[in-house]
Amino acid sequence: MIVGGGFAGLGAARTLRSAPVNVTLVDRRNYHLFQPLLYQVATGSLSPGEVAAPLRGVLGRQRNTRVLLGQMVDLDPKSKRVLLADGASLEYDSLIIAVGSQTSYFGHDAWKEWAPGLKSVEEAEAIRHKILYAFEVAERIADPIERKAWLTFVIVGGGPTGVELAGAIGEIARQTLKHDFRSIHSEDAQIVLIDGLPRVLTSFSEDLAQKARRSLERLGVEILTGTMVTDVDRNGLTVQDGARTVRIAAHTVIWAGGVTMPPVARTIATRTQAPTDKAGRIRVNADLTIPGYSDIYVVGDLASLNGADGRPLAGVAQVAMQQGAYAAKAIGRKARGDERPLPPFAYFDKGTMAVIGRGQAVADVFGLHVSGLPAWLVWALIHILYLVQFESRLIVFIKWAIQALTFNRSARLITGAAATDFAFTKALNDAAVPDIRPTAEARR
Amino acid sequence: MIVGGGFAGLGAARTLRSAPVNVTLVDRRNYHLFQPLLYQVATGSLSPGEVAAPLRGVLGRQRNTRVLLGQMVDLDPKSKRVLLADGASLEYDSLIIAVGSQTSYFGHDAWKEWAPGLKSVEEAEAIRHKILYAFEVAERIADPIERKAWLTFVIVGGGPTGVELAGAIGEIARQTLKHDFRSIHSEDAQIVLIDGLPRVLTSFSEDLAQKARRSLERLGVEILTGTMVTDVDRNGLTVQDGARTVRIAAHTVIWAGGVTMPPVARTIATRTQAPTDKAGRIRVNADLTIPGYSDIYVVGDLASLNGADGRPLAGVAQVAMQQGAYAAKAIGRKARGDERPLPPFAYFDKGTMAVIGRGQAVADVFGLHVSGLPAWLVWALIHILYLVQFESRLIVFIKWAIQALTFNRSARLITGAAATDFAFTKALNDAAVPDIRPTAEARR
Repeated sequence: MIVGGGFAGLGAARTLRSAPVNVTLVDRRNYHLFQPLLYQVATGSLSPGEVAAPLRGVLGRQRNTRVLLGQMVDLDPKSKRVLLADGASLEYDSLIIAVGSQTSYFGHDAWKEWAPGLKSVEEAEAIRHKILYAFEVAERIADPIERKAWLTFVIVGGGPTGVELAGAIGEIARQTLKHDFRSIHSEDAQIVLIDGLPRVLTSFSEDLAQKARRSLERLGVEILTGTMVTDVDRNGLTVQDGARTVRIAAHTVIWAGGVTMPPVARTIATRTQAPTDKAGRIRVNADLTIPGYSDIYVVGDLASLNGADGRPLAGVAQVAMQQGAYAAKAIGRKARGDERPLPPFAYFDKGTMAVIGRGQAVADVFGLHVSGLPAWLVWALIHILYLVQFESRLIVFIKWAIQALTFNRSARLITGAAATDFAFTKALNDAAVPDIRPTAEARR
Repeated sequence: MIVGGGFAGLGAARTLRSAPVNVTLVDRRNYHLFQPLLYQVATGSLSPGEVAAPLRGVLGRQRNTRVLLGQMVDLDPKSKRVLLADGASLEYDSLIIAVGSQTSYFGHDAWKEWAPGLKSVEEAEAIRHKILYAFEVAERIADPIERKAWLTFVIVGGGPTGVELAGAIGEIARQTLKHDFRSIHSEDAQIVLIDGLPRVLTSFSEDLAQKARRSLERLGVEILTGTMVTDVDRNGLTVQDGARTVRIAAHTVIWAGGVTMPPVARTIATRTQAPTDKAGRIRVNADLTIPGYSDIYVVGDLASLNGADGRPLAGVAQVAMQQGAYAAKAIGRKARGDERPLPPFAYFDKGTMAVIGRGQAVADVFGLHVSGLPAWLVWALIHILYLVQFESRLIVFIKWAIQALTFNRSARLITGAAATDFAFTKALNDAAVPDIRPTAEARR
């Protein structure tokens, strides 16, 4: 049994394709989500259908595998059973736990209401709604101070996701929406990227992080490093820069700040008495099993394991895929009656990359530092190759090509609650909207 | 001022492109929705971004035009002002009202909860969720009666939308999901199309309606004509066929039943003392103005006007586009100082068509009756040509080509509340889910 259909879980299921085992994959969602491109859904470049692949579609023809929609809530390692939220109890012979991580607000879960994270399709659509909506309100509002707050976009977290979001919003403001408004200049939008550490992209080398910083600044992104967020509310956020407390008025705050483990992680640790690290991840053996349970593997973001350099492996897709495949290989070997254990899991790091904007990226590929257009091309190629469905590869390729030529983002829809929604009406009423004469006020 | 960015409103705005006027287009949404393909979003073939075009993107470079996000709630024809929900009051010189229609439950609005209509992106996603979810629950449920209720799909309304939905669900069950499940045969799904009239597609000729009926039946769709719906609830619906009352147990009911006018229509009629027809539509003059108000045009679904044959014009895209363009032309002419009135609006009917499945459609093009593959090709070509954005045309073309070859529907995502959602858990708890052994139970 595999719990979770992310990079780790799906990787494990596919690796077991021709093993002499029956595979059950359980996920809360009916699709595998290609997280690295989710920010493009949040910024209107791609549709959810292009970054998500229906699990049944991917695994439908894999005869030894069944997919179940369900959420794991408990584990009984003695009777070898997993309990789902709907009350079903599933027996396993071997278990691969790949439930992933969730957004961490560092103990301030109330901030979530004002600063959505970017982990799910729903959150990506909520962020897209927020970004586009802010420009709509700004266009309608007369008060310059309120207008500025609507045109201020703050991204908390300077890792790859934060950098990619900030760069994409910069492009939206400077290029995509350039001709779209009559009362505002979309280019006037202020985009702020905040991180508590002394620089952005700490997982990259100093020189690449510097290059990323310069690319972001060219797109109009202001970078505040060494800055801690101390409060987030409806009207903006408060940050601490050393001894200085600064208030930023902003109606669009996006949280790309950190990860924590889902509630079921604690249950699993309790039931198996597994050791956990500070982030709540389960410390696994070198073969990715839980100490004392050779039949339970923990892979992906939930697994805590040090790499060859003695530093903990990061919660990234590459690690998850390799761990999922490793656990599957170990199980397949046992099922074939081969009792020799696999050598310990060893992570093979192919590199790391982050995209900033059109033709702008930084990449560390096999130790080679690349930036600018070459890095962007490598990034685009690798991300298209790793998409699960052939159709998505083709569509994403075409959409990127069109966007590179035109800056158009065709999926910039405000769905969900629209103009009639409270926030909009409230914002406008508060601001005493002036009567509008039917003049185009074309400024260009 | 133009209120509404549908076929009528957008058509009017584009026609005024080079007229010596300032245009303000107000819409509740930030996008134009290509309604005729919305059923493909509901059935997982296309993503919302492909059937919706951001209004600002379409009109951004049209210098005399501005777009405002807002909802019209009132009209003062004396001071020539439109009031928006957010309190703003907008003055106009000439007004084009193109607010469209909404789903009618014939006085039973409570049915909406169990039988969503297909008018908005949100509703299309809700229907997609319902359809895919039903198969997921059926796969998990043991009780054969409950399982059958989850595998029964009822579409109310035998017009083009109902026929298209029924055909698409037939294809999903027979082709797309064929290999996807282990405990159920997706082909066992029962698809029922219900209409109160004696046949489906009453706007088509007898022979084409017959052909459509046969194509639907080949896809496994049961057609109940002359059948009235008398109740809809959580567990299914009750229908009346002559003196016979039949209960259909079904957890997926879709409403493609009829249209009514939005609340603002009554307000407009009151303020202008305009006559309305039985459906609440405003009876307009031959030049599409409201009697007594030569500066207010009503176009699209909200306009009630008879065609050359003395029968009321239908609420379809073609009529809306031509009416929007007519009103815009009349306004442009006045603005240029040309006082000669336009000849009365005359609808030019290019034909009507409905698609049933892959390579299956019926079409009446300039009086020529076509069916099967030729009709499908005409349908596909015309719908691609009428899509507003170049990018959508290309992407939709590719997606259809891939789907025609593979039956794959890449956008079959269950978004919104997923496995943890109440209905699912409740359905499974009620049905006393059996414990599941990790066997694939592959039946093929």
